[in-house]
Amino acid sequence: MNYLESRRDRIYDRMAQEGIAMVMFEDAEGRRDPAIRWLTGQPGDALLFLTAVRQAVLVPWDINMATVYADTDLCIPYAEFGHQSIQALRGTAEFLKVPYGSRIEIPMDTSYRTFLQFVEEVTDFDVLCRGGGVHEAVRELRAIKDEEEIRIYRQASEITNEIIDLLEDSIRSEILRTETDVALFIEAAARARECEGTGFETLAAGPERSFGIHAFPPYTSAAFAGPGLSILDFGLKFRGYTTDVTLTVVRPPLTRQQERLLSLTERAYKLALSMVTDGVEAREVAAATDALFGKSRKAMPHALGHGIGLEAHEAPFLRNRSDNASRLQAGMVFTLEPGLYDPAHGGCRLENDILLTGSGVEVLTRARIIRL
Amino acid sequence: MNYLESRRDRIYDRMAQEGIAMVMFEDAEGRRDPAIRWLTGQPGDALLFLTAVRQAVLVPWDINMATVYADTDLCIPYAEFGHQSIQALRGTAEFLKVPYGSRIEIPMDTSYRTFLQFVEEVTDFDVLCRGGGVHEAVRELRAIKDEEEIRIYRQASEITNEIIDLLEDSIRSEILRTETDVALFIEAAARARECEGTGFETLAAGPERSFGIHAFPPYTSAAFAGPGLSILDFGLKFRGYTTDVTLTVVRPPLTRQQERLLSLTERAYKLALSMVTDGVEAREVAAATDALFGKSRKAMPHALGHGIGLEAHEAPFLRNRSDNASRLQAGMVFTLEPGLYDPAHGGCRLENDILLTGSGVEVLTRARIIRL
Repeated sequence: MNYLESRRDRIYDRMAQEGIAMVMFEDAEGRRDPAIRWLTGQPGDALLFLTAVRQAVLVPWDINMATVYADTDLCIPYAEFGHQSIQALRGTAEFLKVPYGSRIEIPMDTSYRTFLQFVEEVTDFDVLCRGGGVHEAVRELRAIKDEEEIRIYRQASEITNEIIDLLEDSIRSEILRTETDVALFIEAAARARECEGTGFETLAAGPERSFGIHAFPPYTSAAFAGPGLSILDFGLKFRGYTTDVTLTVVRPPLTRQQERLLSLTERAYKLALSMVTDGVEAREVAAATDALFGKSRKAMPHALGHGIGLEAHEAPFLRNRSDNASRLQAGMVFTLEPGLYDPAHGGCRLENDILLTGSGVEVLTRARIIRL
Repeated sequence: MNYLESRRDRIYDRMAQEGIAMVMFEDAEGRRDPAIRWLTGQPGDALLFLTAVRQAVLVPWDINMATVYADTDLCIPYAEFGHQSIQALRGTAEFLKVPYGSRIEIPMDTSYRTFLQFVEEVTDFDVLCRGGGVHEAVRELRAIKDEEEIRIYRQASEITNEIIDLLEDSIRSEILRTETDVALFIEAAARARECEGTGFETLAAGPERSFGIHAFPPYTSAAFAGPGLSILDFGLKFRGYTTDVTLTVVRPPLTRQQERLLSLTERAYKLALSMVTDGVEAREVAAATDALFGKSRKAMPHALGHGIGLEAHEAPFLRNRSDNASRLQAGMVFTLEPGLYDPAHGGCRLENDILLTGSGVEVLTRARIIRL
């Protein structure tokens, strides 16, 4: 059994436990769901139906793409259903002889208006849209990476680290001078190393703009790595999985305030890393770094970290929020990314990707504060 | 009154007509809504509340960004509401003294599960999630560009045309040789001309990959513009608005089948352009090109075109589908992009941006089939 089949197998088991006859997944513009890639290999733009009798049917926009990438029992072009998800659900359920009256689960983020349409037009089945069901189980399973995913992450991290080293050299030698230089260097280097691209739009913010958490626009033709603090936040997408790192590039002279931002950020990073263990509450780690910053009357305007995978942000979330009940577990891959931002002095952030294993913590990437 | 105020004014009028006391807009990861930028200038990651007494309150993630970009009556950092939209809605409604029991409209694409939470937790107001309301009115208004938007589109098109010419020269002289070369040239040229970036990920597919509607990955280090048909689909994002063009680059020798794809695509493009008039049904234009292809036993696997603006795909949609009731109107900016794709011979597409005015049709961009 390949890794796609064994993922589907766990979902079929869950469906059986919950008495679900069919599950629909949807990946479309504005409603991305990497579950389809995770379960079949198809990179996107498709519906996927799994049934209680362990069949997987893909309904892709692009049948040529599916021929190359998808591992499923059956493929039906979406055009045959007029590109309408309700029609596809009805048609597939009838074709597969899903018993009338049985329960079919649709995506948990389905809009209120679309759900009403499903209920109105699909009268032969009991259509469910809910949390705590099969879709939520897929998200939870995706947060714990399997062997194949960890293998991919080791390769992706190796490429990321190679590019970090090249970036440092090229910035030091002033071959890369502008935000655009740096961002396009990453794009080209990624593709030359068989990445699909970057996992999200690279953020390169020179000293004038680094105070923004997410500088806008993400990169411009302005100078990068001039005196002060510059931030470079990027990720590589390799076989669907994204890395996510942030370097801060520092060029003297620095103000005392800038030195303070840097040393606090480094202390927070070390503190967080020391607290990461199998079973720790994600919120507790985030609360500790918030407290450290708070003692110096600073506040971090974003979360401490987040899971990475087929999405750039996914479970677990390392947020200091009362509604965050998640625990870090072996097999999770996530970022630690403390940062501080000051409109007058600029910003700094240090972000690396962490793999938590049964035997401890592995820092996959080697992002750092680079002092020129 | 500036153009942002006059857009808001039209929404306030609509709210008054419909007896809506407050409207909430939301732009967040996975739930993008450019209405916020259209109404306030804030590029994204915010909530926006408009009230019947003509107040606009922005609730941004990044208050520094709002200080630079947003034009509103009041700004409240999202952190003050714990980054929870329900809390922000309640808090803002109370702060602005929106009368208890009055109607508040939330985004029409709100998920079923989130809508249930709103209804449960916001008991002092009548929360509506519906089509045909204020949100739909905003989408319809956004499809008809105002003077400011047309001014932006003329500038964006000029830059796009300049880059098309540079691309043609650099491909002919073999300065640009790979898919990555071409895509990164566009990224750099865009930023050097004060664009925010590209409007969507550039698709550069050499002859081996051009048969895919959306080649995956979008660009690689493979050769571009070798013998046969290569497709280059890109858009520039300028002051928020994206252009969207596709060039087909042709290098001899061609098969008869390839010549046939090209001439059919050009004929379909001319036919579509000749049919575009104020008031024509979008579906009728799309049906005509489908019929033209059908006579030659070919089929186009995507729509004929779509509106462009703050989104890369927005109203109007030029689809040959029975549920498409939209008519083309003066002020609309949209693409025409007939294309044909053959797994053995490759693909071709010709796409330009069209502005429909009261006096006729203006082809804003100058994408073309480039024969080397």
